[in-house]
Amino acid sequence: MTIPEIPSLDKSLKPTLQEKIDRKTKPTGALGRLEEIALQVGLIQQSLEPTLKNPQIVVFAADHGITQEGVSAYPAEVTRQMVLNFIQGGAAINVFCRQHRLGLQIVDAGVQADFDESLPILRKKVNYGTRNFLHQKAMNHSELVQCLHSGADIVGDLYQKGTQIIGFGEMGIGNTSSAALLMHKLSSIPLEYCVGRGTGLNEAQFQQKLVVLQKAAAFHQYISQDTEEVLQTFGGFEIAMICGAMLKAASLNMIILVDGFIASAAFLAAFSLQKNIREYALACHLSNEQGHQRLLDFLEMKPLLSLGMHLGEGTGCALAFPILQSAVSFLQEMASFESAGVSTKI
Amino acid sequence: MTIPEIPSLDKSLKPTLQEKIDRKTKPTGALGRLEEIALQVGLIQQSLEPTLKNPQIVVFAADHGITQEGVSAYPAEVTRQMVLNFIQGGAAINVFCRQHRLGLQIVDAGVQADFDESLPILRKKVNYGTRNFLHQKAMNHSELVQCLHSGADIVGDLYQKGTQIIGFGEMGIGNTSSAALLMHKLSSIPLEYCVGRGTGLNEAQFQQKLVVLQKAAAFHQYISQDTEEVLQTFGGFEIAMICGAMLKAASLNMIILVDGFIASAAFLAAFSLQKNIREYALACHLSNEQGHQRLLDFLEMKPLLSLGMHLGEGTGCALAFPILQSAVSFLQEMASFESAGVSTKI
Repeated sequence: MTIPEIPSLDKSLKPTLQEKIDRKTKPTGALGRLEEIALQVGLIQQSLEPTLKNPQIVVFAADHGITQEGVSAYPAEVTRQMVLNFIQGGAAINVFCRQHRLGLQIVDAGVQADFDESLPILRKKVNYGTRNFLHQKAMNHSELVQCLHSGADIVGDLYQKGTQIIGFGEMGIGNTSSAALLMHKLSSIPLEYCVGRGTGLNEAQFQQKLVVLQKAAAFHQYISQDTEEVLQTFGGFEIAMICGAMLKAASLNMIILVDGFIASAAFLAAFSLQKNIREYALACHLSNEQGHQRLLDFLEMKPLLSLGMHLGEGTGCALAFPILQSAVSFLQEMASFESAGVSTKI
Repeated sequence: MTIPEIPSLDKSLKPTLQEKIDRKTKPTGALGRLEEIALQVGLIQQSLEPTLKNPQIVVFAADHGITQEGVSAYPAEVTRQMVLNFIQGGAAINVFCRQHRLGLQIVDAGVQADFDESLPILRKKVNYGTRNFLHQKAMNHSELVQCLHSGADIVGDLYQKGTQIIGFGEMGIGNTSSAALLMHKLSSIPLEYCVGRGTGLNEAQFQQKLVVLQKAAAFHQYISQDTEEVLQTFGGFEIAMICGAMLKAASLNMIILVDGFIASAAFLAAFSLQKNIREYALACHLSNEQGHQRLLDFLEMKPLLSLGMHLGEGTGCALAFPILQSAVSFLQEMASFESAGVSTKI
C-alpha cells in the first residue's frame, strides 16, 4: 500500500490570518483556543474565510478475536447490536449528530455478522472479526492493505461530496485491547500505562485483561516497530481502516477530528507513518480511559474537551464540533475595531 | 432588600433519574459529566424529561470609577462602544448566540453614557458608572438595592416568557478590579492571587493595578465581610445586578450558567448570601484571568470548558450551552438496552 505523502502546511498566510483575528472586537488573544483553531483551519484550507462544509462523523465497526480471552465487560455480540442501534438512531452518537447537524456514516469494517442488505451501512467488511492476537497476528497483510484502502475510499467519496471535516469514531467490543498494544508498540510507553478498564471492567477483570495483553506482547515481542506490522499484529480492522481514512483526509486538506482512546491509537499509527498529519488534526476529548492522557501527551496534542466520557463512537468529535464552528464563525462574523468604532488599547 | 430563600434541591427523584441514565445504551458512566448534568438538571426541574426552553444570555454592562486609576488596558468608553457593538450584532457573544440559537439581552446597568431610545437595550441604569472605590464606596445602599431588584426583575420577566436557563455575562471596562476585591473580601484569598491582567495589561500596568487595588483594600479594611457591604464598597452595578439576577433565577428553579471571572465573582456574592444556589448552577469556562481557578476551587465548582478565553460577555456560557443540550438530549432520545435489544454486561 502506498501511504500518501502529507506535506507540512504552508504557513505563508499565517500573518494575514493572525492580523484578521487580532482586529476583531476583543482583547488580543481573548478567544484563546478558538483563535488557534481559526488559524489552523485557515492554514489547512489556505483561506481567510475557512468553512466546515458537510461535516461528517464516520463510525467504523469491527470485532476482535481477543475477546475470546475475556478482555471486555460486554459480550462481543454487542458490536453487531450497537451497529443496529446506530442505524435505528438510538445511540449517543446519533443524538449528538442530530443536535449538531452532522452527517453520520456507519461502516462495517469487520463485524462478526451479516447485516440485512436493506440497511444503510457502508459495506467494507474485511473479515468476520480479527484473529485472536494472543496466538497469531490479528490480520494478514492483504487484510491490512484492504483496511487502509477502504478507509481512504470512504474519505475520498466524502471529499467528492464536499465534506471538509470528518470525525472518526469506532465501535468494537475488545478494541481498547488492540489500541493499548498499538500505543505500547508505537510509543514505547510501558504496557501497564496503556491498558485501561474499557467499557467498565472491575478490578479482577482488569488484572485479567492486563495479563492477557502482557502475554500477547510477549508472544509478539520480536515484531518490528514498523507501523504496518504493528497494525497487522494487533488490529483491529476498524482501527487500521481509520488510520487509512485519516491519512487520506489529510492528503486532501480535510480537517481530522480525533475522538477518544481507540481513535487516538489509530491516529498514532497514521502519525507514525506521516508526522505532518498532526497539523491537520484536533484532539477532541480526553477520555477517562487510562492511557489516553499519556497517548495525547506523546502526540503533543491538547484535547478540546475533558468531560470524563469513555464511550467512543465519535462522541467526543461530535461534542467538540460546535467549538470549531465557533472558531470559524467568529473569524467570519465578528466586527473589527474599525468597523464597529471601538477604541483599541490605550 | 429581602434576599430570596434558596432551598436545597429535593433529591428524591435521584434514584429514578440515575436508573434512566444507566439504562441508556452505553457503559455505566460512559457519558461522564453529561450524566452529572442530566441528573442536576433533572433535579432542578424535578423531571425525568428536563428541557432547556427559551435559553438566554443576559449581558449586564456598567462603568467603573476605578478606571480613573489606570487599571485597564482599554479606555472606559469601550463599555459604551461594546454595548453598541452588541446591539449591532458584531461582538463574539452575538456570533455564539446566533450559532446556538440563544436569546441575547443587553442590560444597561450603569454605563457612563445615554443610549438612543430606539436601541433594544434593557434600561436598568443605576447611575453613570460607580464611584472610584479608591476613595469611597462604589455605590450607596439604595443603589445596591436597586441593582439587586433590577436583576431579579429581568429574570422574573424571562421566567414569565418560559426561559428555563440563563447565562449571565458582563461588559464593563475596569470590572476585573471590582471582581478581584470581591473575591478577596468574600473568600479571604490573598489579594495578589485575585488580581489579574484583565483585558491584557503588560507587566508594568499589572503592577500598577495591583498597587491601586492594595490601596483600595487598605482604605476599606474596616468594612465587614457582610456580602451587601462588600458589594456596595467595590461594585460594580453589573456585578451586583447579576448577583440579584442569579438569586432570583435559583428561587424560580432556573438553571444558572456561570461565565468567567467577573460573573463568578457575582456568583460568589450570591453564594455568600445563599449557599444552596450552587445546586442550580454550572461553571461554564475556566478563564485565563488569574484568580479564576482559585475562585472556582473556593466555590468547589469544576468548569465545563477550559479554552483559555478571557473575554466575558457570557461567551463561556454560550460555548458551554451545547454540552447541556447534549446532556438533556441523550436523556430524552437515547435508546435503552431493552428497547434497542443490546446485551448488558457479562
